[in-house]
Amino acid sequence: MEGLIHIYTGDGKGKTTAAVGLTVRAIGNGLKVLFVQFIKGSQTGEVEFLSKFQELVEIYRCSTGFVFNSPDELQRQKVKDCLKDIEEKIKKNPYDLIILDEFSVAISTGLITKEEAERLIEIKPQSSELIITGRGAPEWLIEKADLVTEMRKIKHYFDRGIQARRGIEY
Amino acid sequence: MEGLIHIYTGDGKGKTTAAVGLTVRAIGNGLKVLFVQFIKGSQTGEVEFLSKFQELVEIYRCSTGFVFNSPDELQRQKVKDCLKDIEEKIKKNPYDLIILDEFSVAISTGLITKEEAERLIEIKPQSSELIITGRGAPEWLIEKADLVTEMRKIKHYFDRGIQARRGIEY
Repeated sequence: MEGLIHIYTGDGKGKTTAAVGLTVRAIGNGLKVLFVQFIKGSQTGEVEFLSKFQELVEIYRCSTGFVFNSPDELQRQKVKDCLKDIEEKIKKNPYDLIILDEFSVAISTGLITKEEAERLIEIKPQSSELIITGRGAPEWLIEKADLVTEMRKIKHYFDRGIQARRGIEY
Repeated sequence: MEGLIHIYTGDGKGKTTAAVGLTVRAIGNGLKVLFVQFIKGSQTGEVEFLSKFQELVEIYRCSTGFVFNSPDELQRQKVKDCLKDIEEKIKKNPYDLIILDEFSVAISTGLITKEEAERLIEIKPQSSELIITGRGAPEWLIEKADLVTEMRKIKHYFDRGIQARRGIEY
C-alpha cells in the first residue's frame, strides 16, 4: 500500500483533534504511529492517554514554544536537533502513520525552512501515511499532498471570550 | 461549566475523525462520553478501540444504513427506537460529552425530523458538551451551535479513484 500525504489546515477547530482521531483509528487496526508535536509545550489529556499504548504509538515532542516574529537562535537549534532525531526514528522504525502536528505553523513562521520540510517529506518511507496539521499550510506543500481539508471557522466560542477548557481543548 | 454545542460539517475528511479525537481528549482527562453513531453499520477500528474503555466511553450504534431518496418505514421505526434509547441514557447518566456522529446527515436526509433533533438537543444536560458531525448541517442547527467548523475539501484522493483503506478511513 502506498502511503499518502494528508494536510489539515485552516483557522477552525479540529485539526490536531482529527490527527488524534486518525491515530486511534490506526492503532485500533494494529498500525504503528509516530506522533510528532511541534511548537506545543504542555502535556495534554489526549497525548497522556495515547502514550499508554507505547507498543503502537510513539510520541515525540519538539517543544520550541510559539514563534512570534521570527524564531530565535535557541528555537532554531532546538528544531534542527528535533529534525535529526525524527529522521533517525523514521529510518529505524516501520511506522505506518507519521503525524507532524503543527508542522505547517512551524514552516510558515520560519521555525522550519522549506528545505528542511521537503527533506522530511522525502525521507518518508513509501508505505507510510503522512499527516500534517496546522494553519497556514504553504501552497507548495498543498501541491505535494494527496488530501487537503481546510478546517474553516464558521463560528467559534473563543470569539465570545470563552477560554480553552480541559477535556475539550487540551 | 456550561456545555457547548459543536458542529463539524462540510464535504472534507476529518469530521468523525475529529469526534474520535475529542473522545480521546475527554477520556484522557477522565470525562465520561456517550458516542452515538447514526447510519453507519460496520465496526470500525477506532470504535473497537474506544469500546475497550467501557468505564468512560459508551458506544451506541443506531445502524439504519444509508438513506437514498427518503427513509423507508423500517429505517424510521429503527431511528425512533434509537432516539428513545438515547434519551433514556442521557437522562440516566451524567455524560460530560455527547457525540452524535452523522447526525446532520440523518437530519438532512429526513431520517430524523427537525422536531426529533430539537428535542434531543433540548434534553441535553446543561453541563454536557454536545458534538454533532455530518455533512449538510441545516441552517437552524448552525444557529443553535456555539462552534461550527466546516471541513472543506480542497483535494481528496477518493477523486483519483483510491478506495477507503483500513486504518485510515475505518
